[in-house]
Amino acid sequence: MAYNLLKGKRGIIFGALNDASIAWKVAERASEEGAQIVLTNTPVACRMGTIDELAKKTNATIIPADATSVDDLEKLFVQAQEVMGGKIDFVLHSVAMSVNMRKKRTYDDLDYGFLNKTLDISAISFHKMIQTAKKLDAINENGSILALSYVAAQRTFFGYNDMADAKSLLESIARSFGYIYGREKGVRVNTISQSPTFTTAGGGIKGFDGLYDFSDRMSPLGNASADECADYCVVMFSDLTKKVTMQNLYHDGGFSSMGMSLRGMTQYEKSFIDENRDENGKIIYG
Amino acid sequence: MAYNLLKGKRGIIFGALNDASIAWKVAERASEEGAQIVLTNTPVACRMGTIDELAKKTNATIIPADATSVDDLEKLFVQAQEVMGGKIDFVLHSVAMSVNMRKKRTYDDLDYGFLNKTLDISAISFHKMIQTAKKLDAINENGSILALSYVAAQRTFFGYNDMADAKSLLESIARSFGYIYGREKGVRVNTISQSPTFTTAGGGIKGFDGLYDFSDRMSPLGNASADECADYCVVMFSDLTKKVTMQNLYHDGGFSSMGMSLRGMTQYEKSFIDENRDENGKIIYG
Amino acid sequence: MAYNLLKGKRGIIFGALNDASIAWKVAERASEEGAQIVLTNTPVACRMGTIDELAKKTNATIIPADATSVDDLEKLFVQAQEVMGGKIDFVLHSVAMSVNMRKKRTYDDLDYGFLNKTLDISAISFHKMIQTAKKLDAINENGSILALSYVAAQRTFFGYNDMADAKSLLESIARSFGYIYGREKGVRVNTISQSPTFTTAGGGIKGFDGLYDFSDRMSPLGNASADECADYCVVMFSDLTKKVTMQNLYHDGGFSSMGMSLRGMTQYEKSFIDENRDENGKIIYG
Amino acid sequence: MAYNLLKGKRGIIFGALNDASIAWKVAERASEEGAQIVLTNTPVACRMGTIDELAKKTNATIIPADATSVDDLEKLFVQAQEVMGGKIDFVLHSVAMSVNMRKKRTYDDLDYGFLNKTLDISAISFHKMIQTAKKLDAINENGSILALSYVAAQRTFFGYNDMADAKSLLESIARSFGYIYGREKGVRVNTISQSPTFTTAGGGIKGFDGLYDFSDRMSPLGNASADECADYCVVMFSDLTKKVTMQNLYHDGGFSSMGMSLRGMTQYEKSFIDENRDENGKIIYG
Repeated sequence: MAYNLLKGKRGIIFGALNDASIAWKVAERASEEGAQIVLTNTPVACRMGTIDELAKKTNATIIPADATSVDDLEKLFVQAQEVMGGKIDFVLHSVAMSVNMRKKRTYDDLDYGFLNKTLDISAISFHKMIQTAKKLDAINENGSILALSYVAAQRTFFGYNDMADAKSLLESIARSFGYIYGREKGVRVNTISQSPTFTTAGGGIKGFDGLYDFSDRMSPLGNASADECADYCVVMFSDLTKKVTMQNLYHDGGFSSMGMSLRGMTQYEKSFIDENRDENGKIIYG
Repeated sequence: MAYNLLKGKRGIIFGALNDASIAWKVAERASEEGAQIVLTNTPVACRMGTIDELAKKTNATIIPADATSVDDLEKLFVQAQEVMGGKIDFVLHSVAMSVNMRKKRTYDDLDYGFLNKTLDISAISFHKMIQTAKKLDAINENGSILALSYVAAQRTFFGYNDMADAKSLLESIARSFGYIYGREKGVRVNTISQSPTFTTAGGGIKGFDGLYDFSDRMSPLGNASADECADYCVVMFSDLTKKVTMQNLYHDGGFSSMGMSLRGMTQYEKSFIDENRDENGKIIYG
Repeated sequence: MAYNLLKGKRGIIFGALNDASIAWKVAERASEEGAQIVLTNTPVACRMGTIDELAKKTNATIIPADATSVDDLEKLFVQAQEVMGGKIDFVLHSVAMSVNMRKKRTYDDLDYGFLNKTLDISAISFHKMIQTAKKLDAINENGSILALSYVAAQRTFFGYNDMADAKSLLESIARSFGYIYGREKGVRVNTISQSPTFTTAGGGIKGFDGLYDFSDRMSPLGNASADECADYCVVMFSDLTKKVTMQNLYHDGGFSSMGMSLRGMTQYEKSFIDENRDENGKIIYG
Repeated sequence: MAYNLLKGKRGIIFGALNDASIAWKVAERASEEGAQIVLTNTPVACRMGTIDELAKKTNATIIPADATSVDDLEKLFVQAQEVMGGKIDFVLHSVAMSVNMRKKRTYDDLDYGFLNKTLDISAISFHKMIQTAKKLDAINENGSILALSYVAAQRTFFGYNDMADAKSLLESIARSFGYIYGREKGVRVNTISQSPTFTTAGGGIKGFDGLYDFSDRMSPLGNASADECADYCVVMFSDLTKKVTMQNLYHDGGFSSMGMSLRGMTQYEKSFIDENRDENGKIIYG
């Protein structure tokens, strides 16, 4: 269902790779809500993925750009304004990658060149994007900038590796720049901390399946889907949230406020199979 | 501008006293967005205030109820369903009062009978409201329950007195019941932590004027108004935020994420008038 | 090993019931570190428990007092100063009880009289204790007041019931009074958020065993013991932490900063026994 | 006063420049408490500062090392163990520098090469230090690693610039590595979030004087001094805090839990000098 929440607005969406991507869903929903959009991703990702299909569906223009390149970002913001006929109202940053994870370097054996890449792609790119936009004065007053994050920014998840640090940095950049861009232009900057989601990126994380299940059982409303995330992004781009800024907004079915659910514990207790119980059936704790 | 975000939904709104009340604005906006509503407040408040005017404007029914009385709440939920012809989709709790503050009892000289009243009216009433609704199965699946809070739940503001403790309790109840009502019925429970607002309640707080100014200068987007808060409530009642629960959502122009703004400090430094500066014009710190 | 950290200091310790109590360990350690102490608990608990043994061991005086009675608290602080020959330097509040839990009233079926009792015993008693002490000017400058809390104040644990709300209130009182007592007398007020601990109180919580195990596997250092908690309390009573106030200090082997540990997940995955796996051995998520 | 809290322990202290440095005070206090220490800083800082004096006073060895160089760190940990005759028990990281701040590049005009330097020196160096130590197995079981942070990691302070982001990253590294080093060797990793302090580093921050005053008036116990911070570090290095890990510990006189103090507001209201008041003396808010 559509409400015309973004009627007349112009947006740029980073990070749609294929139809499992959250950014993909956001593009669809933003378009349904009346927005005009530009899609962007690295030149390689634009070729690898199926972004053309999305562009057709949402009547969008694709402008490839490497989010770590200030030059590319400048061109992107200039062209996007030309193509859409005015300043930008909203931006989605859905960009993250860890070479350490890909190369199976554990957190106590990081390659520091790879770490720099992780931080540059997954966090500093957000600063570059905002700084570039601000220098070009490319964002309308009361515009809205969002990045996608994960609760690992606050709490450690085994195997999430240097991406946890990147997400912390990302959320800090949202606050720091939210202050500056807010006071000067009324532009808000927030992050949405989303449930684990079966995307191409999410799927790559060590032990993702078990974590997804645990997270789902811990969350009273279950994990939030990519479609639901897109709804929340639309709301944050709309004029109904003009005074929300510098926030990390959990969109996770309640996970972030849970210590232990009955469903989670019921499953957990099943793990103590017979050999881990004494003759009275009591758990033998390890 | 309206989007039909609450079309076909039924809501109950606690705490509209007069047109300065946040609850008043929420009733107006919810109605504009297509919701049918019931207004409620204590019998005394219903007489004192101008709620009739609001009821006319929003085509609402008024059902007086003392939010601390389980009996009253039962009648309210039963009647509200009858009047509106079905289960409730959303509830707003905007109820708070401290007798200690009114009687000028400072926080180190609390009357414990008054403290119990503060907690009962401002926090436990939220539990009573939800427990009553749940026992009556009065809320639709995916319903949304909201209470209004303030950042004093996390950080101490002089003069906010036992209301700070009440708000902490309120936010805890939102989490605790959010888990239960979420897992069983998909109902979400959240609090919105709003900027200081010039309402009848807000105006009564010691040093409110100075605090309002400080808060405004600290917040990059300035203080959020009651109207803007109503927009945010509408969003949280809508189907676009179905997976947000157990959260305390700051709606404050960025205040909660600020340590010190340039505007705040510029004003602060003016306080060091000549007598507080040495012969070189440097501030003499106290 | 002892360091004389509390040499010459006088303390009051609430809540030692038997040698499994954290308060019991704190009394022992405080005494070892050179402090003079007064033990207190309700008259009933003083009779039921084995506190006499502790008093002998620590050379302490027992002064029974109901922590919810301002009269009793007044007598306690007056007598404690007489007995120990001077103002008090530190106080431990280790008092919590939920009638709703005992009577197996679930959180969506609370008895509100019982809830008031839970809050009065487990949280408001902390305010009464501090307010009484302050009115009597019974605490030395730079004194230290501590209460024991649990992470359920921030995150929901099934079965922890209204005690979660009580702990939130308790932590809020620590902040609110920490501000007042700090600015006027330099007295700090903090809470320690301790791992689940096998005490008489802890043992009564629904599903405690499973939770204890989960918490232990999630925490990189394992659960913190009562003895280790006593060490941390001693540190917080000493002169080495004079500028720490209004804080909730996690003493939990890292649990509060964990999202998922490898050990926790390894155990969790064992729960997917054969019937929950497909023919390829892959987990079938529920 | 000394308690022998660190008797027999060996520590490495990064970042002592001169006697205003917190690291300097920590070295003195650690030595008083019975620890053997190695001092380290960049070769340039070792020459510029007066670290020789400190080495003499604390009977310490100086081993220059650039904290961003893994090679230097390896040599440091190897030599430190040789010099002190065994594995290391504690490490203090007090290292931070922003070229953007020095070069007066504002946050919306960052040089990204400088940003990389800020992050490398102020945050990634902490990872390098820990990873190097772990690979060499240079830290004893139950060892304690600390870094100094600032509340700007959570809340934005104008003028703190990219250092805020660096501190967020630093605190995330403490959590991420705290998990790994904790589960494998029982080593805890924490950060202390200290009040603004008049050190060589602190003095360089824009508007530091006003901020220091505001922070002092907001904190019920006033700002924490470098000496008091050293006491807290000693406590965190001692065996009395063995189960505290992955925490950010505020050592700030209560600042982090304050929204507004009476003292702060009283000063603030003085800023509304006559020209900002109407004929009735009421403040005209801007």
